[in-house]
Amino acid sequence: VSLRPSRSAVESAARRLSSELGDDRVLYADPDLLARYGSDYSFAGSFPPDIVVRAGSTKDVQTTFAVANALGVPVTPRGLGSGKSGGALPIHGGIVMSLERMTELSQIDRDDLLVVTQPGVVTADLMSRVEAEGLFYPPDPNSLKLCSIGGNVACNAGGPRALKYGVTRNYVLGMEVVIPSGEVLRLGRRTIKGVTGYDLTSLMVGSEGTLGVITEITLRLVPLPQAVETALVSFASPIAATVAIGAVFKRGIVPRTLEFLDTFALEAVRARTPGRFPENAGALLILETDASSQAHAMAELERAAEVCTEHGALDVLLAQDEVQRERIWEPRRVLSMTLADTAPKKMSEDIVVPRSRIPAMLEQVQQISTRRKIRVATYGHAGDGNLHVNVLFDEASADRAERTVQDVMRATVELGGTISGEHGVGLTKREFISFEQDSPLIELQKRLKRTFDPNGILNPGKIFPLGGPSE
Amino acid sequence: VSLRPSRSAVESAARRLSSELGDDRVLYADPDLLARYGSDYSFAGSFPPDIVVRAGSTKDVQTTFAVANALGVPVTPRGLGSGKSGGALPIHGGIVMSLERMTELSQIDRDDLLVVTQPGVVTADLMSRVEAEGLFYPPDPNSLKLCSIGGNVACNAGGPRALKYGVTRNYVLGMEVVIPSGEVLRLGRRTIKGVTGYDLTSLMVGSEGTLGVITEITLRLVPLPQAVETALVSFASPIAATVAIGAVFKRGIVPRTLEFLDTFALEAVRARTPGRFPENAGALLILETDASSQAHAMAELERAAEVCTEHGALDVLLAQDEVQRERIWEPRRVLSMTLADTAPKKMSEDIVVPRSRIPAMLEQVQQISTRRKIRVATYGHAGDGNLHVNVLFDEASADRAERTVQDVMRATVELGGTISGEHGVGLTKREFISFEQDSPLIELQKRLKRTFDPNGILNPGKIFPLGGPSE
Repeated sequence: VSLRPSRSAVESAARRLSSELGDDRVLYADPDLLARYGSDYSFAGSFPPDIVVRAGSTKDVQTTFAVANALGVPVTPRGLGSGKSGGALPIHGGIVMSLERMTELSQIDRDDLLVVTQPGVVTADLMSRVEAEGLFYPPDPNSLKLCSIGGNVACNAGGPRALKYGVTRNYVLGMEVVIPSGEVLRLGRRTIKGVTGYDLTSLMVGSEGTLGVITEITLRLVPLPQAVETALVSFASPIAATVAIGAVFKRGIVPRTLEFLDTFALEAVRARTPGRFPENAGALLILETDASSQAHAMAELERAAEVCTEHGALDVLLAQDEVQRERIWEPRRVLSMTLADTAPKKMSEDIVVPRSRIPAMLEQVQQISTRRKIRVATYGHAGDGNLHVNVLFDEASADRAERTVQDVMRATVELGGTISGEHGVGLTKREFISFEQDSPLIELQKRLKRTFDPNGILNPGKIFPLGGPSE
Repeated sequence: VSLRPSRSAVESAARRLSSELGDDRVLYADPDLLARYGSDYSFAGSFPPDIVVRAGSTKDVQTTFAVANALGVPVTPRGLGSGKSGGALPIHGGIVMSLERMTELSQIDRDDLLVVTQPGVVTADLMSRVEAEGLFYPPDPNSLKLCSIGGNVACNAGGPRALKYGVTRNYVLGMEVVIPSGEVLRLGRRTIKGVTGYDLTSLMVGSEGTLGVITEITLRLVPLPQAVETALVSFASPIAATVAIGAVFKRGIVPRTLEFLDTFALEAVRARTPGRFPENAGALLILETDASSQAHAMAELERAAEVCTEHGALDVLLAQDEVQRERIWEPRRVLSMTLADTAPKKMSEDIVVPRSRIPAMLEQVQQISTRRKIRVATYGHAGDGNLHVNVLFDEASADRAERTVQDVMRATVELGGTISGEHGVGLTKREFISFEQDSPLIELQKRLKRTFDPNGILNPGKIFPLGGPSE
């Protein structure tokens, strides 16, 4: 199936868009500029678009859809390009609709605990602006300094704090969205509760830019926790660490983060920062609690640390100040890059299994790694079962690496898990969706997509594999 | 638009259903039995169905849909009939699909903190069964002893604890659902996180039985809080109480409940239990905190009580034991019935406004009540802006009562609110949905409904008014 638009359609589209939006908002025929909009953090390849529209308003998005529908040119929405599954790649060419210029944060409401923002605001900027008002936006994808809040909403981003606070979807109260027909819809509400009509807000969150383009977002906030406490706990082995994780929850403790590094991930960190971790350590946990008072945050953390010690922790380091806290987190934050340095190529998977199945999953990963002769490092948000399985390889082992990923996906689903916890399906996982979902469910989703996008111009080829009865 | 099936279609359906499901599962031609399935707690009238199927399995639901599609007979799903907006009323006759017999709670998983249940389980039973395992299912609709978990999911039920813990949707990880085509879909997952495909689970939650019939539900649980503390706080006026509510949140405190009773609601309670509240009190708040330790729950409650005192509370009563706690809650629990005793008829509305607009909303309600010469009592989950506005009337004032409800709905939407917080739109509010949502959004939802239900046999006439371009 090729959806690539004809040369003449592209030329007409460029002409009409330039004339209606102004040259400043339309990039065309400049290969260097276009190339910047053709790749992302999935490393799935480079797909330069034919045209880039840098939308400045909801009206611009409507205009672009009108032109795209009339000429049959695909439109691929894009935030800041930090996605890890290729959702923003214009694989069939056409128009990239960039939201990078829609950066107005129009309202922080301290009474109703909400923020209203355009999609192009950088997530970390949004966080610090609401924190300055004593408020808190919890979802914290690792890319928070590079990604946009619109991209977070489109992909339902998570992060370490999702363990206690939930993911992006739990914070989206409402949005303005332009659907491919050009209709502007106001979904959801400004209130915390509400059951009027179908929950199209939740449907839009995580739809990876395949149902509409989000032009404004209303996010719920919570009071900023007054105290955060952090501990680094080391264990002899990954299995010992995961047993302790289960025990922490059984004790009724819900930390705000419970991050996990397996032996290989720890080794990669050690190579960068020698001497920081006990020599006999084979796995790490980073535990963090927060509360409205320091006494309570510390009491919770100490209870959690106690459970870890009862379950064989080798060492517990409680951060005494912000500097120590940063020292604990820094290796975790740069881990993706640290691992990338250890091999010419890396595929970063994002599976979730029920928490009790983490030990079984780690064993499966180990077996697959041995069988396929491919190095695999696993780390992630183990508190909610969300593991980033990093497959490390080179040109020569690319085939085996592909099979390793497939094996990991199958094992995940067999253990009752899901193939994506927070990165999305996009391009790179669309072939795996059938491992998890059967064909009537996939067909229903394709029918839903057509309800929003009858001409199939919006982000074609994402989430669901092309072909099958409905295409 | 009449969708009422013909006599012969009904007779054929009854014959086929009896023969395929067995007589025990099919009620037909017994007016007394059928009448029991024709009303609910909306008091919107009595609509006895032609046939009742008491489904015992997913297969029964599929069979019913096959017969209904073939003969063009409407199907209205029903839990335990405690709905307040008429969503389960078979207004066009046909088949009521009762889930009351699907009462198996198949799994409580203490490791992964989840429960798997059929839809017919009574919510209070599910709660006490998971609490016996040290786990907690937070959503607590007032009807919890009368309603089913399936109905809660279909309507996205809330309750007082939604303030801290969120509503039903926040706890539904996945479900099995039969859509009108007869296809059985497994939506969602057993893991806490997951972004594979569109969030059809959230779409189904709150769809009020218009998209499919839920036959199994997987719910997320949390650790059971070890301590709960409760306070009753009285204020001179509703406005004073609502100012204090805002101040509590500004101090960073998130109680688990923050219930409100206005002067009229308080008077109704007083008539039943004289002498319990200060004579000069004109409004009440019920504040509750919970935590993993009693010290922390009490510290939070005391901070909240302090804020109330700073903002003019007349009196703060901290419950010293379970008996006192029950004494505080009991008047609130029976308030709906208490108010019903004060007038021949009552309509119970369920609006939400942004928390900061509660004072303005109360003022609007007061003005409307005066203008329409209709008594109105307001109480509810003021912590999240969800107010139950109770319109009290008799036969002679029924017209004015209708207009009062309309005025309240318009005022709600003008203040940035929503016409239903937790009861649903169903039948009784479908004419008001256009106050809040514009026509492209309503049309899109109708198109979505047709994607699930092309023949329009499932719960026709609910949520969206009939007529318009798509019918």
